Amino acid sequence: MTKLILAGPDDLDHVLRLLGDFHAETGITQDEATRRAALAPLLDGSPHGCVYLAGPARAPIGCVVVVFGWSTAFGGMEGKIDVLYIRPGVRGRGIGSEILATLPKALGAAGLAALHLDVARENNALHRLYAKQHFRARDNILRMTRKL
Amino acid sequence: MTKLILAGPDDLDHVLRLLGDFHAETGITQDEATRRAALAPLLDGSPHGCVYLAGPARAPIGCVVVVFGWSTAFGGMEGKIDVLYIRPGVRGRGIGSEILATLPKALGAAGLAALHLDVARENNALHRLYAKQHFRARDNILRMTRKL
Repeated sequence: MTKLILAGPDDLDHVLRLLGDFHAETGITQDEATRRAALAPLLDGSPHGCVYLAGPARAPIGCVVVVFGWSTAFGGMEGKIDVLYIRPGVRGRGIGSEILATLPKALGAAGLAALHLDVARENNALHRLYAKQHFRARDNILRMTRKL
Repeated sequence: MTKLILAGPDDLDHVLRLLGDFHAETGITQDEATRRAALAPLLDGSPHGCVYLAGPARAPIGCVVVVFGWSTAFGGMEGKIDVLYIRPGVRGRGIGSEILATLPKALGAAGLAALHLDVARENNALHRLYAKQHFRARDNILRMTRKL
C-alpha cells in the first residue's frame, strides 16, 4: 500500500524535483522560478490545490498535484488531477492505479462532486488505465483555451 | 457597450433565474437547492469563482460565471468560463462576443495565466465564435471525469 502524504512548505524541494522530472519527460518547458511560483502556494494551504507525496516523505517515489475548481453544472467544488507522476524506476507495479483507486474516495468524502483529468487523446494505454478506475472519457466536449 | 457588474449576495435571485433558464435551454437537470448551493458561494466572495451580470443590474440580459482553478503547467491561477448566458431576446447583437473580448483582458490583468471553456464538440458555430476571440481548440486533449 503506497502511502500518500500531504506535502507542506518543507517539501518544496522534493516536489520541485519531481515536477521538474515530470516536465522533462513530458516535454513541458518551464523555468525554475515559474515552477516554484506555481507550486509553493499549493504547499502553503492555497484553496486552489494541494500536493501529495507518494511513499516515504524523505525519499518520495512520486507525487500527485490535485487542483480545485468549481462547476455550477456539477453543483459545487470539483477537482482535477493536474499531475500524477511516478518515478520511472518504480513504474509497472500498479502504484498509479492504487493512487487512482484511493484518492477519489478521500476527495469525495471531502465534498468534491467530480474529479477530472486531461489525457493525450492518442494515449490509449492511459485511457484504459483511467477507465479501469472509473474515469469516463467525455468525447463530446472540446476544450478551448485562450492564454492571457 | 455591455456593462459587466460583479454580482453580490443581493443578486442571488437574478442569477438563479438566469442559470435556471440556461439549464432548461441546455438540458441540464438540477434541482433548485443544488443550483442555489452551487451559486451562493460565488456571490459571497468564494476564491473558486465569481459571477458577472450583463447589462443593468436590476434587469440583467445575461450572466457569466467564471470559475478559478490552478495549473502547474500554465504556471499558476487559471480561469474557466463555466457559464455564458445571454437571454434569447437579445441574442445576435454581438453581446457574447463583446464579453469574450473584454473579460479576458480583465482576468489577465488580475493575474490569470489562461482562460478555458468547454464547448460541445459538434457545435461548429460556437467554435468559430470562440476562435474569433482567440480561444484555440485543444483537440489533442481528452477530458476524463469520475463523478464522486
